[in-house]
Amino acid sequence: MTAASDATTDLTDLDFTAYADSRRAMVDDYLAAYMARRADGEGFDKLKEAMSYSLLGGGKRFRPVLAIAGCEAVGGDCEKVLPVAAAIEMLHTVSLIHDDLPAMDNDDLRRHRATNHKVFGEALAILAGDALITEAYLLLSAPDTAPPATAMAVIHEIAHATGLSGMAGGQSLDMLTAPDEIDEALTRQTHHAKTARFIAASAAAGALMGGADPETVAALRTFGENVGQAFQIVDDILNVTGDAARIGKSVGSDANAGKATYPAVHGLPESRRLAAEHIDAALAAVQHLGEAAEPLRAAARFVIERDR
Amino acid sequence: MTAASDATTDLTDLDFTAYADSRRAMVDDYLAAYMARRADGEGFDKLKEAMSYSLLGGGKRFRPVLAIAGCEAVGGDCEKVLPVAAAIEMLHTVSLIHDDLPAMDNDDLRRHRATNHKVFGEALAILAGDALITEAYLLLSAPDTAPPATAMAVIHEIAHATGLSGMAGGQSLDMLTAPDEIDEALTRQTHHAKTARFIAASAAAGALMGGADPETVAALRTFGENVGQAFQIVDDILNVTGDAARIGKSVGSDANAGKATYPAVHGLPESRRLAAEHIDAALAAVQHLGEAAEPLRAAARFVIERDR
Repeated sequence: MTAASDATTDLTDLDFTAYADSRRAMVDDYLAAYMARRADGEGFDKLKEAMSYSLLGGGKRFRPVLAIAGCEAVGGDCEKVLPVAAAIEMLHTVSLIHDDLPAMDNDDLRRHRATNHKVFGEALAILAGDALITEAYLLLSAPDTAPPATAMAVIHEIAHATGLSGMAGGQSLDMLTAPDEIDEALTRQTHHAKTARFIAASAAAGALMGGADPETVAALRTFGENVGQAFQIVDDILNVTGDAARIGKSVGSDANAGKATYPAVHGLPESRRLAAEHIDAALAAVQHLGEAAEPLRAAARFVIERDR
Repeated sequence: MTAASDATTDLTDLDFTAYADSRRAMVDDYLAAYMARRADGEGFDKLKEAMSYSLLGGGKRFRPVLAIAGCEAVGGDCEKVLPVAAAIEMLHTVSLIHDDLPAMDNDDLRRHRATNHKVFGEALAILAGDALITEAYLLLSAPDTAPPATAMAVIHEIAHATGLSGMAGGQSLDMLTAPDEIDEALTRQTHHAKTARFIAASAAAGALMGGADPETVAALRTFGENVGQAFQIVDDILNVTGDAARIGKSVGSDANAGKATYPAVHGLPESRRLAAEHIDAALAAVQHLGEAAEPLRAAARFVIERDR
């Protein structure tokens, strides 16, 4: 791990930013071109507009970049993983659109813009989410996305991470938990389901697209699981300490709503220590991979750098 | 077509009812067993309860029965198509849960019971829909559901029929169309997207699971497309003429809302003629199939029998 550790000293953040910028641009271009040719002239313009508004409205593209880095880490081709990276971003976008709805978090602002339902109304925001979930699986099952066996494994990996025991399940815990029920175990479970599983699946899907063997896919999953836990802890921390301009939504909104967050349960210093511990575990999981895994390692380090 | 025509005389309705009852029982049993073992002890009980409430709450199971009939029509095994039939019913259930939401049709009653959001609240109803879409693709991509190439074809067929250009797109037209914009073409397009495509995909997916060649799959799709158009026309008719006990929701609710319906655009007699014309086209599409396609033909005839 010496080479990887040396790289942390100075250039990591810069390296990851440059890498992430280039890969994010590829994802953005792919998504824009894909949506432009979808259902053209079929008369569903308003729904398509609502989908595109949130899907093409910027964002870090952290999950797709991780899928690409996961693919490249195992020697795969960046171009080939783009449809999978795009599908992953579609599913992430669904969680943003639906979580912002009045019945859920009731947010007016997302990524410095009006939320989907503020622009298109609740009905279209609900349908845009439904259609984006479906679009992800349409893309993942397209004949030119991947060989059938690979596509099937990718779909199973991603569906497992975003449904009942994944993102949707985590959001249900987030919505249903009363402030006096919040404890360490529940906070961990919510973060695991809502965030970590999907980030793990993104890295693992990248590895699958890169043709990795099952052990390597599992290593990428462990990597992503730990990055995901750290990612959510840092998000919780930034929600307490950050500024609205940086995170693009109201500071303190989670704490005000009495939600399960790491700072609320563990305090800030212990939350920071736990985040760092998860990043160490993530790096250990991909320690045996070669230099091609550097962007992946840089991504992991970047997650805690955000909090500085 | 003589054998098929002869069968219509007396026993068709009885035959289809018996066939549909037996296949519906298989789908119900499969869904109940599947949901019982899903995410057991993982702590997502409330979301699972909301999903199960609507999924296991009865219904005609018309689409899954059609998938089974489509599989059997091409010589396939009824048992093997059950996971696909179950996934189809999950996706249909999503449309019921989400269409009933206050932001959409705002219905309190569905299948003679309180709608999902009336029991579980809007947030959980939205998430139950999201999780059921995802669950369908989790099931369709499971290693023991189908060989990878078949599974990918089924997923692509179904995703195409339920997303932007399918069920979600159709519902968006239903929501957005102003009463003075309703005309023949738009009514047809809405029905096509909202109902016919998914019924077509159900029959085609059944044929795919039965190992049919592309021409036969296409014939089943044409069959389902026409059955679907007739199905929606008859639904429109029953909404005007039927009684609430029979259809399980308020009579006249579509007409009151100024929606695109066949009786509103064409009048009742012409609507009935058009429905019959679609059933004739459906029967013609599967005319060349043998006796194994009888349940399929009976299903088509049953659609217009409902209106008598």
